This record gives sequence, C-alpha cells and structure tokens, in this order.
Amino acid sequence: MPVNLPEPVADHLYPVSGVRIGVAKAGIKKADRRDLVVFALDAGTQVDAVFTQNRFCAAPVQVCRTHLSEGRAIRGLVINTGNANAGTGAPGLQHAQRMAQACAELFGVHGSQVLPFSTGVILEPLPIERIEAALPQAVNACHETNWLEAAQGIMTTDTQPKAFSERVQTALGTFTVTGISKGAGMIRPNMATMLGYIATDAQIAPALMNGLAAALANLSFNRVTVDGDTSTNDSFVVIATGQSTVMVDDWGSEVGQAVWQSLTSVARQLAQALVRDGEGATKFITVTVHQGRTSEECLKVAYALAHSPLVKTAFFASDPNLGRLLAAIGYSGIDDLDVHAINVYLGDVHVATQGGRHPDYREALAQAVMDQSEISVRVDLGRGEASETVWTCDFSHEYVTINAEYRT
Amino acid sequence: MPVNLPEPVADHLYPVSGVRIGVAKAGIKKADRRDLVVFALDAGTQVDAVFTQNRFCAAPVQVCRTHLSEGRAIRGLVINTGNANAGTGAPGLQHAQRMAQACAELFGVHGSQVLPFSTGVILEPLPIERIEAALPQAVNACHETNWLEAAQGIMTTDTQPKAFSERVQTALGTFTVTGISKGAGMIRPNMATMLGYIATDAQIAPALMNGLAAALANLSFNRVTVDGDTSTNDSFVVIATGQSTVMVDDWGSEVGQAVWQSLTSVARQLAQALVRDGEGATKFITVTVHQGRTSEECLKVAYALAHSPLVKTAFFASDPNLGRLLAAIGYSGIDDLDVHAINVYLGDVHVATQGGRHPDYREALAQAVMDQSEISVRVDLGRGEASETVWTCDFSHEYVTINAEYRT
Repeated sequence: MPVNLPEPVADHLYPVSGVRIGVAKAGIKKADRRDLVVFALDAGTQVDAVFTQNRFCAAPVQVCRTHLSEGRAIRGLVINTGNANAGTGAPGLQHAQRMAQACAELFGVHGSQVLPFSTGVILEPLPIERIEAALPQAVNACHETNWLEAAQGIMTTDTQPKAFSERVQTALGTFTVTGISKGAGMIRPNMATMLGYIATDAQIAPALMNGLAAALANLSFNRVTVDGDTSTNDSFVVIATGQSTVMVDDWGSEVGQAVWQSLTSVARQLAQALVRDGEGATKFITVTVHQGRTSEECLKVAYALAHSPLVKTAFFASDPNLGRLLAAIGYSGIDDLDVHAINVYLGDVHVATQGGRHPDYREALAQAVMDQSEISVRVDLGRGEASETVWTCDFSHEYVTINAEYRT
Repeated sequence: MPVNLPEPVADHLYPVSGVRIGVAKAGIKKADRRDLVVFALDAGTQVDAVFTQNRFCAAPVQVCRTHLSEGRAIRGLVINTGNANAGTGAPGLQHAQRMAQACAELFGVHGSQVLPFSTGVILEPLPIERIEAALPQAVNACHETNWLEAAQGIMTTDTQPKAFSERVQTALGTFTVTGISKGAGMIRPNMATMLGYIATDAQIAPALMNGLAAALANLSFNRVTVDGDTSTNDSFVVIATGQSTVMVDDWGSEVGQAVWQSLTSVARQLAQALVRDGEGATKFITVTVHQGRTSEECLKVAYALAHSPLVKTAFFASDPNLGRLLAAIGYSGIDDLDVHAINVYLGDVHVATQGGRHPDYREALAQAVMDQSEISVRVDLGRGEASETVWTCDFSHEYVTINAEYRT
C-alpha cells in the first residue's frame, strides 16, 4: 500500500498536443502484461534528458546519450519493462540500438531520432525478438489519451501507476504538463530517476531547453531516495511539443514562471510518488536540513538520515528512538561539525539542543508525530545559510520480502 | 542464530596476568542482568585506545580522550550496557566523569586513571545512581578468570557473548592474548568497534604501544559492517600488562611477529564475531576488492557492496540476482571506472567480465555458492595494485524486527 498516493484516473491526465502514446504486451518477463511503450513525437518537438551517473549504466542509456549527441530531432521513445538491458556488454548495446532502429522504421524516421529505455532485472540478455515482434502493435495503438496505459506499461515492483497532470490558463493561452514515472526500488536517483517522462505543449525557447531536465531533476528526482541504491537505468526526459500558444523565452516572465512552476510541480509529485510507493513503504518522510554552510553538506546530513537502516526501521515501528537521528547526523561526514549548535525537530517537537535532549522533550509528543503517515524531520546545523530537502520512506519487513523474492 | 560463531567457553579463555575483572547487576535497563563491568589493571600496565569518529560521540568517549591525554597510567575500566550516555549534553559528561571517579575511589587511584564506557540506547539520561550503587559489588568481584562474564556483561542485542583467547609459546617464554567485543547493530566502526577490549601480558615497548589500537583496528574492526551506521560509542582498547617474560621492542623480530600475529588474530576474530552475530544475520560475507589504484577506492567498492540493501536482501534470499553487484560497483563513487576492465566472482564462479555476464556463467553454479552460509565476493578492478577486504552479513526480516522493537 503506497503512502497517501492517489490512484491516477485517465480522465485527469490531460493529453499533450503533439505526443501520442502506444502500449503493447511483448511478454518480456511475464505473459499478458503491458511491458512495451512507445511515444510518437510530432515534428518541432524539443527533448532534453538526464541519465544515471552509475558507471555500470545500462545499454539503452549509452544509446540515448549517443543519439542525443548526434543532434537530430528526437521523434520517438521506446520503453520496455521486465529487463534492464544493463550489465549486458556489447550484445546489450546492439539490442538497444536494434530496439531504437525498429521503432524508427515504423515511425519513418532515422534510427538516431528514437531514444530507447529499459527497466527490470540486470545482467540478463534482453529478449529483443519479442520486443521487435510487439512493436508494430504498440505503434499502431498510438493515441494522445494513453498516458495512464503508459504509466502502467513502465511499472516493475510499483504497486500502482504514477502520473500527474496540470492544465494552466495564462495571458497567452492554455498550456498542459503531463508526466509519468516508475520506482520503486534501487531508488537513489543521481541526475534522474529510474524512469520519468514529462511532456508539455508549451513553446519553450531552445536556449531554455538545454539543461532543463537536469534543473528539474535537482528539484525533484535528485532529492528522493528509497534504499540508497542508484540504478543503472535512471533516465528523466522532458518533452516540449510547442503546440500550445504559450511561449516562454524567459523563466522570469509571468508566463515563464507559470510554466516553470507547473513543470516543477509535476516533476516533484512524480518523484515523491516513487517514495510514496517505495518498496514496503508505510511512512512518507520529509528530511529538511537548514543552516548548513553549503548545499552539499546539507545533503550529506539529509541522506545520512534518509539512508540509515536504524532510522528507517524506527520510523517503520513508529518508535521515537531519536538517538538514532543524532548518530546519523554525527557520522554524516562533516568533520568540523559542532554538535552543540545543532537543533533537531520531529514534526513540531523540539527533540535535541546543546548536544542533548531538549528540556521540554516528552516522549508522548514525539510518539504522536511518529504515529502519523507523513512525518517531517528538521535539522538546523547552526553554521550557515544553505538548506536542502530530501524525501524518503521507512524500511519495513515488506521491503525485505519484495527484494528477497524479486526474481521469483 | 549467529553464523558459524562458536559459543565461548570459560575454560578456553586464558587469564591475562595483571588484569582482573568484576561484573555486577546494576539494573540499568533491565533487572537481573549483568550490565556493569570493571577491569582492574595492575601497576605497570600500558593502555592504547581508539574511538568513534562520529561527531555526536558519547560522553564517556569524550572523558576517555581527556583522561588518556592527561598521561597518568590507566589502572581501571568501567563499562555499562543498557544506556549509551550519548546525546546527553553537559549532564551526560558529568555522569561519565562520576562513573570514572566512583570506580577510581574504589580502586584507590586518581579519577583520570579510569576510563568509562557505555553502550545501549542513545538520548536518554544515564541512571548514574544505580551504577554508583552497584560499583562496589563489581569491584569486590574482581578476579582474573572473569572474561566470559565480562563478555556477557557488555552485550546489548548480541545473541551470544564474544571472546577469543590465545596462549603462545616463544623462545622467551609464554604470552597470552585475550579479548572480548560486542555488536550487533549500528556497526560500521570508524576507528574502532562498538566496544572491544584486548589484553596481553606481553611486555610491549612503549614506543610500540602508541597507535597500536588504531593499527589493529585497521586490520579488524575497521573492516566490518553490519548496517553502515557508525555508532556514537565505538571504543577499542588494547591493554598490555607486561607480566609475561615475553618482551617485544620490534614487531619485525621473531617474538614480535608472534605477538603481532596473535593480537591481529584475536582482533580479527572479535571483529568478525560482530558480523557473524550481526542483527538478523544468516550469512557471513567476505568482500574482497583487488587491482584498485588505492586502498581508498577498493574500500569504496567493498563498502558499496556491503551496504547495498538490495545486495544484502539477495544474499538473505540465496538469490543469485547478481546484477545488483554490478549496480553497486557502478555507483560506488569511482568517477573514471572502466566497467569493461572489471571481473566479478561469486565464490569460484566467474560472474561478470567485459561489462557483461561471463560466457561460462550458469545460474546453477551461482546458486550453489549462494546456498552456503559463508560466501565470498571478489571484484578485480583491473586498474592498479591495491586491495582491501571487508566483512559483512546479509539483511533479513529479523534485522527489521530487532530494530523496530529495540526499545520494547
């Protein structure tokens, strides 16, 4: 059961003019499930993307980087679940290229105009023939209204599809932002999430597109973690079809701000959805670190808290064993940290000050916070002006069950 | 159930001449359990120690550092379990000082000649009155043969006491090394373990004592991890009473090598015992990384593997889902890692080469290794001459249970 994650409804996912989506059942890992998704993008569409920093990055990630660097307009995406095509060496690279090429031929475009993506088990050969066989069916099914099917078609251990959508009225007209993502384990995105796709019909100036995916990721996907394991396949793609009358050539303008706000909002909801549906999650935890000297040291502290198995199991148990927060802050890697300057809060409860427990702390107050499903932890480092926020979940029996049985 | 960890037998723990140990029941957290241990050290004993690098280090760790820096001969140790006296601010510091002072008065020595240690829950006030009340009983019980009782008296979530002992014959006579340690969670020692004590009666030249604990820790306690959580209380103490006829003024001499070998052996067994009895452990895993450019990068890869929840749950399930090994190597933090130069082995099975699965790999071979309780993972990075070994355990339902219920 995900934590406070509403099931998306097809009617609430606005189509993005210029983006058509088709889904098929290729039988990649299991029979009779949606596991192949294609995006057809109209001419004139701009695409920006960021990918995993894992050195064992998957074959499709390598092909995406090559295709993007070749500079031709991207006209299609092809995505399979059930197999990550990672740790597959030279044959894996050929499979990823074949996957893009087969899709490109059906779309009538050049091979490098299609980006391939894979997610699933690592170190096993991609069943490329099954993908090639099912591709025509996916391409023929392409339609603007298939966002929910796409969200379903990229799931692995996710318990529900993840999709968010906004339609905004501005002085220049209406624009739409719709996106999908998948989790739910091996989630500590480093530049991007496992898989995330956001499309808008706003006309975004080419100069603003370059680096847009990375900028959005740093406000969303790069601030969530489930288990600290950075995937081999993380990919996040931003698509702008330019078919709305809304034109942006400056993020600072009123309309620019509206589009930026909407892109950020959808990206953040998609990223948080990964955590809400994190493997075995029962709590959604927001960790905010203030008063650091740099963003980097705030993130060190936030991730130490968000990754500590002891902190995460205490949240699972709703046990205010808050000494574990102090221990994690203490080993987070800030060498000259003065623990007497630190203040720690659980929700509104002031837990620690002056290197010890706050005099007004009462366990019953902390227990009341721990019993919630949405919990915030705030650490004031007392040494600077920087701050950062990271979202994570607890660590439950269910996580162990899911990951002990993943391949069965 | 610990993994292949023999229950220590009192008869096999050799007394160390010059070290007497007393144990009492102070009722610190639970009634009627051994929770207070004192060591009485004869005049002429040398002591060296290393402590946690956690910035939220416990009050007793701070007092130990102060007492050691004052330079008086250390004549006693006092250790409680059930409360870590960490995250306790100024009052905690006073409690740690009182604990040492009360013990020193009973021993008839100066307060700074006693080192205090605590382990247990963080952020709760130490019940110092109960400790002071029980101290005379512990001091009166002091005897050379109480090593097993001491090992029992420092346990927290440990399922069994940890003690190892060696008596060695040399050309200069006989010497003894006996040690105890405790785990079993919040274990990623950084300079030392949660609590470890090794005593020898060998006469070790003062110049060789300085830094001995750190050197031994780097071969033992600093190479194990259970959950990656570095404790606030890690302390490792080496005691040399000098009451044997065996004299060492050069580790390179024949006798020096024998003593070094014995100290290392006991330290390593104690450190590995923490992992074998790691919370919820069902497998003992040795991770060796070869052909790195530096020890540091070998340790990055080894700890990435040893801390990955996905790797650890796969070992728990005996599931050769070995793509997770590649993912962890890939995100371990070596920016210019060439994955095509890497070879990965599970036991004797060659898993990965050339960025993908080895052509001779068969899942049945890997499954046979995964079914063992002692498993080795070897990574050859193919970029240098350095190598490192880290010991860890798997990640089970029992770990979640233990840490969700720790305070109940």
